[in-house]
Amino acid sequence: MNSVPTKEDIVKAHERIKPYIHRTPVLTSQSIDDVAEAQIFFKGENFQKIGAFKARGAMNATLSLDPAELKKGVATHSSGNHAQALARAARILDTRSYIVMPRTAPEIKKKGVRAFGGEIFECEPTLEARETMLAEVVRKTGATEIHPFNNYDVMAGQATAAKELYEDMSDLNVIVTPVGGGGLLSGTALATKYFSPNTIVIAGEPEGADDTYRSMKSGKIEQSQANSVADGLLTSLGDKTFPLIRELVKEVIVVSDKEIVAAMKLIWERLKIIVEPSCAVPFAAVLKQKERFKGQKVGIILSGGNVDLARAFKLFEDFT
Amino acid sequence: MNSVPTKEDIVKAHERIKPYIHRTPVLTSQSIDDVAEAQIFFKGENFQKIGAFKARGAMNATLSLDPAELKKGVATHSSGNHAQALARAARILDTRSYIVMPRTAPEIKKKGVRAFGGEIFECEPTLEARETMLAEVVRKTGATEIHPFNNYDVMAGQATAAKELYEDMSDLNVIVTPVGGGGLLSGTALATKYFSPNTIVIAGEPEGADDTYRSMKSGKIEQSQANSVADGLLTSLGDKTFPLIRELVKEVIVVSDKEIVAAMKLIWERLKIIVEPSCAVPFAAVLKQKERFKGQKVGIILSGGNVDLARAFKLFEDFT
Repeated sequence: MNSVPTKEDIVKAHERIKPYIHRTPVLTSQSIDDVAEAQIFFKGENFQKIGAFKARGAMNATLSLDPAELKKGVATHSSGNHAQALARAARILDTRSYIVMPRTAPEIKKKGVRAFGGEIFECEPTLEARETMLAEVVRKTGATEIHPFNNYDVMAGQATAAKELYEDMSDLNVIVTPVGGGGLLSGTALATKYFSPNTIVIAGEPEGADDTYRSMKSGKIEQSQANSVADGLLTSLGDKTFPLIRELVKEVIVVSDKEIVAAMKLIWERLKIIVEPSCAVPFAAVLKQKERFKGQKVGIILSGGNVDLARAFKLFEDFT
Repeated sequence: MNSVPTKEDIVKAHERIKPYIHRTPVLTSQSIDDVAEAQIFFKGENFQKIGAFKARGAMNATLSLDPAELKKGVATHSSGNHAQALARAARILDTRSYIVMPRTAPEIKKKGVRAFGGEIFECEPTLEARETMLAEVVRKTGATEIHPFNNYDVMAGQATAAKELYEDMSDLNVIVTPVGGGGLLSGTALATKYFSPNTIVIAGEPEGADDTYRSMKSGKIEQSQANSVADGLLTSLGDKTFPLIRELVKEVIVVSDKEIVAAMKLIWERLKIIVEPSCAVPFAAVLKQKERFKGQKVGIILSGGNVDLARAFKLFEDFT
């Protein structure tokens, strides 16, 4: 897709991926609502295939290839959930996946890629090293690059999480997502425009990677400092995601690592579910600006649950 | 109720408690099925009100009191989830609850009781001390004792978890629950007899509290050694639960603490949910006897999710 997804594109993407994804549950908790002084509806994408919403976008992009493209496989650079999501989509559609990953990526995520038959190419943990190696892989294999977020088919896929939430909950005042590269946020913003236009879209972003916050102020894409426990949100925006975010997102709320880990712990304790640090960012944003959300119906996309338990325990110890 | 619950009793109990409990989800995971080499259907009672199936039995028993009884309140001794469940039922029905707890009970469970307005009476952690203090509390207040498991109304309430599971999954080969005092197990066995008579009922029990295993062999109620990480399963059977278990339960599979913690960790990692050690016992039993369950459709009641995160982390460190 070469232009911003339309309502029809998102409806079609949803139909296309439905056989391959879970319709995830909407979770609520009286005890969470008491703490937040609002009604929170969590869209449980941590229960999605591969443990994150990324299964949606990767599946839609891979399903949208023509047969000749599909045959040559798909490639990407990703340190995280998109890598597993793409490897899974390739496996389902009986083709190959080539995944460039920084050598510092969590072992749990490398394992996940290998389990789906993805070929991993390790590189230094810099954007330049990743892009150089990916270009080489694409040149050698003829595979199609599926960017983790700066891709309209991926965006249309990610939009389906919010679409489902609106089907289940028609009167949300606000929807909050995390923002890294902006795939989920721009997809959610489009879904909101098309399916729930009265809902306000807000993003939560880590303090140590607050490039979206700064980009909204400056009007141009700012670079991320990439310094946060929320390891899924360290990237900067893309030229496809930023204009939509600028147009459709009301506000970016910035939260500290301490606030992120505290929100993550509350989610573990009260909802009895396991979420990764990035996933807790929107709830941290809601807790930080309680007055703003007081008494409202708030949708939160719980983006994913892929975290090494040992790492999570260490975070809880270090920050609380 | 003074006799073994009939099919009609369980149907009525379910109708009675429905407004006050969650219909909990049935969870599945491809990755769990791959490990177990069977199809596992987890009934997520960790998502139940108060985080455990005990909400069902306590609610049914309290709703079954006559108005004069209800006015004087309810009392019990419990170190765990039944305490919170009873305090919650009393709060909902606008009466008082008196809870005798060993002073060693986890803080998270005491907090839970207080949050529902329950009055806690602390005692030494022996059965004798608990019973003595409870008798005194009942004498002074006129409250009705609601035993955690040796009570037919409680049993009929616990039976509704399996009833719901059978409504969602009509062709289970086996159902597995943990066993402590036997309330959930006997309720599940009755529900199976009435609603899914072809399903085999099996119990998982900790090695260090294997009194049910021994009772099945000897034909009389044996005492528990009360030595396991599964702190919800340390009690011995009662004279109402044992005869039903003896009649309707096919087998008790005994598992070590190491096996329990490994199963608990798998559930956390793969299902992305938080369960307490006792809750992992049936899955540990299935993994221990893989050959027995191979290729079958297995229902597992995930009994509860109330565990201090710090305690869980320590268990993972100590045992894996």
